[in-house]
Amino acid sequence: MPGPSLNVGLIGYQFMGKAHSNAWLQAPHFFDLPLHPVMHTLSGRSLAPLQKTAKSWNWQHYTQNYKDMLTNPDIGLIDIATPNNAHAELAIAAAEAKKDVACEKPLARTWSEAKAMHAAVKKAKVNNFLWFNYRRVPAVAYARQLVLQGRIGRIFHVRGLYLQDWIKSPNTPFVWRLSKSVAGSGSHGDLCAHTIDMLRYISGEEFTEVCGTFETFIKQRPLGRMLEGLTASSSGSQKLAKVDVDDAVLFLCRLSGGGLGTFEATRFATGYHNANTLEINGDKGSLRFDLPNFSFLEFYDDTLPASEKGWRKISCTTANHPYAGQYWPPDHPIGYAESFVNTAADITSHIANAKKPADFHANFDDGLACQQILEAVTVSAKEKCWIKTKEIR
Amino acid sequence: MPGPSLNVGLIGYQFMGKAHSNAWLQAPHFFDLPLHPVMHTLSGRSLAPLQKTAKSWNWQHYTQNYKDMLTNPDIGLIDIATPNNAHAELAIAAAEAKKDVACEKPLARTWSEAKAMHAAVKKAKVNNFLWFNYRRVPAVAYARQLVLQGRIGRIFHVRGLYLQDWIKSPNTPFVWRLSKSVAGSGSHGDLCAHTIDMLRYISGEEFTEVCGTFETFIKQRPLGRMLEGLTASSSGSQKLAKVDVDDAVLFLCRLSGGGLGTFEATRFATGYHNANTLEINGDKGSLRFDLPNFSFLEFYDDTLPASEKGWRKISCTTANHPYAGQYWPPDHPIGYAESFVNTAADITSHIANAKKPADFHANFDDGLACQQILEAVTVSAKEKCWIKTKEIR
Amino acid sequence: MPGPSLNVGLIGYQFMGKAHSNAWLQAPHFFDLPLHPVMHTLSGRSLAPLQKTAKSWNWQHYTQNYKDMLTNPDIGLIDIATPNNAHAELAIAAAEAKKDVACEKPLARTWSEAKAMHAAVKKAKVNNFLWFNYRRVPAVAYARQLVLQGRIGRIFHVRGLYLQDWIKSPNTPFVWRLSKSVAGSGSHGDLCAHTIDMLRYISGEEFTEVCGTFETFIKQRPLGRMLEGLTASSSGSQKLAKVDVDDAVLFLCRLSGGGLGTFEATRFATGYHNANTLEINGDKGSLRFDLPNFSFLEFYDDTLPASEKGWRKISCTTANHPYAGQYWPPDHPIGYAESFVNTAADITSHIANAKKPADFHANFDDGLACQQILEAVTVSAKEKCWIKTKEIR
Amino acid sequence: MPGPSLNVGLIGYQFMGKAHSNAWLQAPHFFDLPLHPVMHTLSGRSLAPLQKTAKSWNWQHYTQNYKDMLTNPDIGLIDIATPNNAHAELAIAAAEAKKDVACEKPLARTWSEAKAMHAAVKKAKVNNFLWFNYRRVPAVAYARQLVLQGRIGRIFHVRGLYLQDWIKSPNTPFVWRLSKSVAGSGSHGDLCAHTIDMLRYISGEEFTEVCGTFETFIKQRPLGRMLEGLTASSSGSQKLAKVDVDDAVLFLCRLSGGGLGTFEATRFATGYHNANTLEINGDKGSLRFDLPNFSFLEFYDDTLPASEKGWRKISCTTANHPYAGQYWPPDHPIGYAESFVNTAADITSHIANAKKPADFHANFDDGLACQQILEAVTVSAKEKCWIKTKEIR
Repeated sequence: MPGPSLNVGLIGYQFMGKAHSNAWLQAPHFFDLPLHPVMHTLSGRSLAPLQKTAKSWNWQHYTQNYKDMLTNPDIGLIDIATPNNAHAELAIAAAEAKKDVACEKPLARTWSEAKAMHAAVKKAKVNNFLWFNYRRVPAVAYARQLVLQGRIGRIFHVRGLYLQDWIKSPNTPFVWRLSKSVAGSGSHGDLCAHTIDMLRYISGEEFTEVCGTFETFIKQRPLGRMLEGLTASSSGSQKLAKVDVDDAVLFLCRLSGGGLGTFEATRFATGYHNANTLEINGDKGSLRFDLPNFSFLEFYDDTLPASEKGWRKISCTTANHPYAGQYWPPDHPIGYAESFVNTAADITSHIANAKKPADFHANFDDGLACQQILEAVTVSAKEKCWIKTKEIR
Repeated sequence: MPGPSLNVGLIGYQFMGKAHSNAWLQAPHFFDLPLHPVMHTLSGRSLAPLQKTAKSWNWQHYTQNYKDMLTNPDIGLIDIATPNNAHAELAIAAAEAKKDVACEKPLARTWSEAKAMHAAVKKAKVNNFLWFNYRRVPAVAYARQLVLQGRIGRIFHVRGLYLQDWIKSPNTPFVWRLSKSVAGSGSHGDLCAHTIDMLRYISGEEFTEVCGTFETFIKQRPLGRMLEGLTASSSGSQKLAKVDVDDAVLFLCRLSGGGLGTFEATRFATGYHNANTLEINGDKGSLRFDLPNFSFLEFYDDTLPASEKGWRKISCTTANHPYAGQYWPPDHPIGYAESFVNTAADITSHIANAKKPADFHANFDDGLACQQILEAVTVSAKEKCWIKTKEIR
Repeated sequence: MPGPSLNVGLIGYQFMGKAHSNAWLQAPHFFDLPLHPVMHTLSGRSLAPLQKTAKSWNWQHYTQNYKDMLTNPDIGLIDIATPNNAHAELAIAAAEAKKDVACEKPLARTWSEAKAMHAAVKKAKVNNFLWFNYRRVPAVAYARQLVLQGRIGRIFHVRGLYLQDWIKSPNTPFVWRLSKSVAGSGSHGDLCAHTIDMLRYISGEEFTEVCGTFETFIKQRPLGRMLEGLTASSSGSQKLAKVDVDDAVLFLCRLSGGGLGTFEATRFATGYHNANTLEINGDKGSLRFDLPNFSFLEFYDDTLPASEKGWRKISCTTANHPYAGQYWPPDHPIGYAESFVNTAADITSHIANAKKPADFHANFDDGLACQQILEAVTVSAKEKCWIKTKEIR
Repeated sequence: MPGPSLNVGLIGYQFMGKAHSNAWLQAPHFFDLPLHPVMHTLSGRSLAPLQKTAKSWNWQHYTQNYKDMLTNPDIGLIDIATPNNAHAELAIAAAEAKKDVACEKPLARTWSEAKAMHAAVKKAKVNNFLWFNYRRVPAVAYARQLVLQGRIGRIFHVRGLYLQDWIKSPNTPFVWRLSKSVAGSGSHGDLCAHTIDMLRYISGEEFTEVCGTFETFIKQRPLGRMLEGLTASSSGSQKLAKVDVDDAVLFLCRLSGGGLGTFEATRFATGYHNANTLEINGDKGSLRFDLPNFSFLEFYDDTLPASEKGWRKISCTTANHPYAGQYWPPDHPIGYAESFVNTAADITSHIANAKKPADFHANFDDGLACQQILEAVTVSAKEKCWIKTKEIR
């Protein structure tokens, strides 16, 4: 007889839908969980892919109308894995229905959407979760432990890069991630949000002041396949769509502890498919993480004897590292998918243990804080000057 | 309505049982398969762990008597994931029952067991599969493609290392992998078999002559927990068990194409938890693979202009690399578990397409070839001289 | 009988004095030069170290009064290796004396000094050289070749870091590099100037617009030993000196070709002693150089077949790479000192071949261009907004 | 007035002649030496290159008859940098003339030559030095310090590779290094001798038993230019010379402390120009050195807390590392040439301080020990079995 269950209703069946389906499926295989997550209902707009995904991943039910899930008392958690333009509507509706709500990042397209979503979960007092999945990469979680142990000390410098190159060719067709009305922004919300969140999580620092700039290198692209809800202009015989989001964003920042930072996110960094990279230099030590080298955290311990100092490549795959011991022996690597599995396991445990929403990381507080920084960078780029984050209200 | 099914009966519920359960579960999620693998029955000797694993991974049935599966006409494939001492009995029984059979590596404890197993599947004409899972790491499969394209050319040198360090402390307790009666050998069959197989697979070369040596650094160990079927000696108040397998093996070899090789497998290489490393130097190019850097293959193309030559780190995570495109976008890494998923998918497709057993890699032919090399090294170590592989009969 | 000579008068006997002495000594040992550089006269202010350096390196003469060299018709080249505060006086005097002049970087403490120096060499029509020694690291010179061959294409992104950590401790004593009156700036002119110049040299791009910020993490330091010409405040029993230069500088930029850049120079990046690092991402390929990995250039060729793309680590130590063939066989590495030797050889050849001053890289034009960028960053940091480089006049 | 001098007589003007000339020239520039090494006389057989090298490097005298130096009472040290076939004659003559003698590695072509040379210096009681220059790479010297501090502990495994690829093409012409009468052996004495010596130096272990094999992949080569003293066969219109030395050597070994080793040296490892690589795995820690990454030693400290263990890349360029502090600030790398400079400085200091010949490393004792191992491998390859080193007499 199974123990008590957590019935999950997932919205979205594309890239993130697949990652979340896998997470809910696998979490109980690798974690001893106090609640058993049940893949109860999958929701999405188009019937064919909805049915296909539901069947492939063995969801018990599916519906084209997500509101069916809100009124179903069996469902405890609404998990939002849609494109960004649906986040606000869905999260607010879920909160109002008193459902716990987990939302993919970035929290919202805009600062005002984010504030409304945040207010909704606060008002409803529901558990709220943001899928900043990289927080639960073992190396990233271990980085935070080192900071908390005082191994890095006062932070002088941070450097965050999120480098991709998948749209550097002008022939790469237009997709929803290049539309402001759907995505809200380009690399800024999609990529930079991850790195900003990682820095906040690992270091505990806040961004006090920022100055950034945006660029769209390629202003219009062929419209490869019809995108739901998007209209396209036409150039000669080929339909073209206008890219109205950033291809790249750069910003400098000052941190609450007195440190300085540089951040960059781009989809035009040839040679980097998915390099979410973060470095921190403190007076006691330094850290480096690079997503393609998923298993490793690099640590420089400046308190060692002078001749012995060096960058140390720690394989965070042992039972002594966060999450890793749930899977395989050391250096039998896990990957990207398991960062979602770990998150699903932690969400489940949080709900089971009836902890306060504020005790979970990352929650909508973290999403809002990240969105405030994104917005401050956007304003600074428009005004071509430095902006204090707290002035974004 | 699901399509036709492949009902799998798995024997074993420990480390490999978990890896195989995951493989059968996940294969249809990431591959479009012509048959649907069904997790039909799990078998094992001890009831409690058997039940627990069966339930956790949602096996439809379980049994403590594997023969129940052999007589069940619904079951098409017997998958053996037990310790090595059960391989021969189970595989031969499965073949005699006309079941297709998949066996964990190494094929057997000994050369004579291996020959008997091989004869059984040949006689029964059943499909036979060996879980040399590293063949289906994308970087390894891609390495073979480069060789087949002629990018490496005539092979001068190969270097294979399988380095672990998990028993280097004398306090590490005795486990079944240290018992000759259970495991057959130590690092030789457990680790070196993998590297030998990888070389055969990637290069197509055979080992013509070998000369090796073994060492057991720590001769007896504390008996941590009761091991099924093992008796222990006792030293004072603490029970000690004799380690009668190799801690490490080294060998030199000559290859069919005229090249030279060095191989080493050990559980005493401090700093290496699971470094299955293979290098190949040919007259046109060179290759390097290292398991902890799972996503990458290093390639040196000696046909490039002189100033441009260099070791190239290829992230084998794109849709252009074997298997990788079934999962996530580039540089969203997969890991160890997916090498089993890929194998399960290929086994399923092979059976569905009714191909000849000999068309599948790796099958019992490959297992036997590997075992012959292992045996030749063993003989050479005893005789302290070089041995021709073909003299092992 | 030796061929015709180039008599060199060097000013400075400290770190750079040693590097230049070595360069003039070694250039004829590794290069076939049309002129023989002669170590004619060494000049400096303090007699004891002057005599010691002159003797150790076998300078033929020495003088405490550099003007002796200006009036000596035998001397053809005045080489300035002093702290920055003497550059302007010495270079202008040398030019007025119609001597060819080579100057250490940065050209000057300030934009106005730089303009005066530049005007002086232009008016005198003398050969003028700036020791941006990193231009003549083989990997850097080869990077430029790849750009010129069109292997990088349109540049989207550049990232320049010059990371050191030698003063991150508050106990590190005050030295001349921390004094604005002597050095002009801190990490900005000392380090960032190198990386800016490398980018200009390798890519041919100009900086059109910048926005930066400075930080001095530790505002005063113990006065370790008496520094010539500096007065110190006193705090209790220990004398303290005020640090009035930047410990770190960060800036964003836009480039003439439409690309974006981030630059950072700091003496507080724990774990990095001397990491002068430059990355360039173009639409055809990408490059990475990192000074501690001196021998290597990393190149990503995006025109290769999709499955074969990867970062390639080219050991620029062969006869096919700039300068390297003058020394030892491949992968018998040269180092930092040889970047000066290569520069001395090129200066000598330039003078021998009576080329136009403008034909040499780097010359005072390059020094002035770099200084203009440094100044634009300084202004932008004061005004907290973006500044167009060309507005610095 | 200079202090007392050490007048050096160098024999040889090719590759090693250049490396030694540079070493004697530079040693006093970077080290405070108790004796001043004077570049007194250069000797060689062919007048033109002798004169050219003598002039370029400023040798005070030159002679085609090395015996002139033996009878010159001013000369204190005879430095032998010739091809191997002259080592024995020159070293024995120098010893008999009561000159201190420094010899390039390998000590000799053969075991019997080596014994005669060793006997000669013992009988003459002269200082004797062997240029195993890699002992004085800072990272290598530091590796020994770590072993001596007990940081590695009991050694389980060593792996030595010396990989080059310069003759892998059959078009590479014949040179003296491919002639047994001149070189004695191929990669064995040229390359493997270095790695064997590095292991002896770093670990203090001796080789008790070996088993090896040789290969000559390409048996004859075009005779590019006339080689002194060699006759060539002829094939059609092109002259071909027979390669009668090994292109590659591999051997296994057992060490005095109970560990196991694999060694390989080859000129056919495509992608490796000069990779002299050594790894050591002990029960307390592990070490890795790789010549092309000259500045770095990798260290794995197994005594750290479990979660913090990792391979640490130590840049041995600081004042806390051997030799490095004599040159430039940290991470301003030195290179291959400085390993000779360091050796020249140590030889000079040794002579100045009138230490016993046995106190210097490496001396002819070390050369003899290395030659004994080389010989044991040679015998084992002939007999195709293991050989105890001490049986070589």
